[in-house]
Amino acid sequence: MNAPENFSPFSLSAWSAQQLGRIELALSGWVACPQASPAPAGLVEAMRYAVLDGGKRLRPLLVLAACEAVHGDAQVALRPACAVELIHAYSLVHDDMPCMDNDVLRRGKPTVHVQFGEAQALLAGDALQALAFELLTPEDGAMVPATQAHLCRLLAQASGFQGMAGGQAIDLASVGLPLTSAQLHEMHRLKTGALLQASVMMGAACGTASPAALNALRDYGAAIGLAFQVVDDVLDVTADAATLGKTAGKDAAQDKPTFVSLMGLDASQAYAQQLLAQALASLAASGLKNTHALQALADMLVNRHH
Amino acid sequence: MNAPENFSPFSLSAWSAQQLGRIELALSGWVACPQASPAPAGLVEAMRYAVLDGGKRLRPLLVLAACEAVHGDAQVALRPACAVELIHAYSLVHDDMPCMDNDVLRRGKPTVHVQFGEAQALLAGDALQALAFELLTPEDGAMVPATQAHLCRLLAQASGFQGMAGGQAIDLASVGLPLTSAQLHEMHRLKTGALLQASVMMGAACGTASPAALNALRDYGAAIGLAFQVVDDVLDVTADAATLGKTAGKDAAQDKPTFVSLMGLDASQAYAQQLLAQALASLAASGLKNTHALQALADMLVNRHH
Repeated sequence: MNAPENFSPFSLSAWSAQQLGRIELALSGWVACPQASPAPAGLVEAMRYAVLDGGKRLRPLLVLAACEAVHGDAQVALRPACAVELIHAYSLVHDDMPCMDNDVLRRGKPTVHVQFGEAQALLAGDALQALAFELLTPEDGAMVPATQAHLCRLLAQASGFQGMAGGQAIDLASVGLPLTSAQLHEMHRLKTGALLQASVMMGAACGTASPAALNALRDYGAAIGLAFQVVDDVLDVTADAATLGKTAGKDAAQDKPTFVSLMGLDASQAYAQQLLAQALASLAASGLKNTHALQALADMLVNRHH
Repeated sequence: MNAPENFSPFSLSAWSAQQLGRIELALSGWVACPQASPAPAGLVEAMRYAVLDGGKRLRPLLVLAACEAVHGDAQVALRPACAVELIHAYSLVHDDMPCMDNDVLRRGKPTVHVQFGEAQALLAGDALQALAFELLTPEDGAMVPATQAHLCRLLAQASGFQGMAGGQAIDLASVGLPLTSAQLHEMHRLKTGALLQASVMMGAACGTASPAALNALRDYGAAIGLAFQVVDDVLDVTADAATLGKTAGKDAAQDKPTFVSLMGLDASQAYAQQLLAQALASLAASGLKNTHALQALADMLVNRHH
């Protein structure tokens, strides 16, 4: 157990290891073919392949960290933590398909459509999205209905046409086009930022926080959401496929606008650090005491190497 | 206005016309690019194309009819009515894609991927699924949180791997295979039946009904869900493309198992009538008085010609 928070430095690796254990166990239990269910084994197999044994679990960790910051119920937060990961996983499955990015490598493994065929990949993605909302609406009273509804609302808005899917559509339409800085920001605010920010707000929804604290968490989520993409663009040109676990250099190869192509490499790296400082300032302004994990996650995602 | 229900025969066409007006207006308003939104116009255009100006709206009508049967709030029921139609619409978009059924004609129009490209079709389907859950979770207090959570649960379960997506995966895996009658029933219970049954239960969730009445509605939903597919299989061999608004005879061409291939045409037609009788018997046993619309919809869907 941790010592009192004022005397012991926070260890992200120890905290993450503990949380990741809970997350992996929960995901494996929820993305499963129940004994009683007649669901087709092949579909569930593709869903499990898409979700398990890979991924940094950044979104679930953000949910759990935000839940801690508002002294929420960690057991309740496990459902939104896994739900947001299912949405992320489905988006990767669909995004990798031949009609989208046509990627064959993901997390060091063949992508889902390579492994299971395109039709199964399409269905697995669809079913993972539905399962996310199933996780958020348990029948057993584990979560009060108001929290269930609130979580579904946050997740649906962040995933849909005014969130992730909308950002992907802008991305699709902008290949080879010279985007302005504002357009590039807007695309990433929707495509990646919305779900990262929603992760923070879903964690916060598992406890209680003042409107001012919620606003500060929203700002934190916006800053790390953007920083995440800036760093992704930087790593796309500085890292190799072995480190990255996916095809490197493909943005440039596909003539996609990126922060690096717009601002240059050095300015992009400086921008990421500036966003990190903004995120930490938002946490400091939140009035919340227990933000060690949120701070450390922001630092990790900006200073990661893959 | 209708005369008192004991003295005036129920007119499905008059009732449907009134409900369809409400449904179309609501769908058009909800699947729209808000002025304030930065959502990409192309994606919303594809979503609107997929949802508007077509379709029998059977599922929304079932929601509204079930709501009437339990004396629920018709205004509240409009949200689940449209949400279930969005799920149906997304499933058609994805099902028509080249990696699935590769269909080019739907409701007499080019399918979404033919019109907008595969990538946009994939995203439009994904965004329609998310929007369905957004519709069910309004922030404005129009629907109490417990109803929101209940509706999300019903819809997610009926759409996912133990519902529609699971049925589609069985369908995918069973092309060219000799299914038993039990396997064919199971496939269609999931693929089509789950969402039709969920439509009934979502309408019922907008009012109050005894457990016995809810069980009777569940039986009604199961019977019409199955009947719908039996009739679909019959029409696939008896109707032509002009009447059907989609490619006729494609099940046989793709060597898909159907009720007709398993039971023969006459027995399939008789089976549909038997399921209609079961559905009506369930309504009679429900103890609910205001089931005219549910009765008429069951009759219509079994005795339809397209």
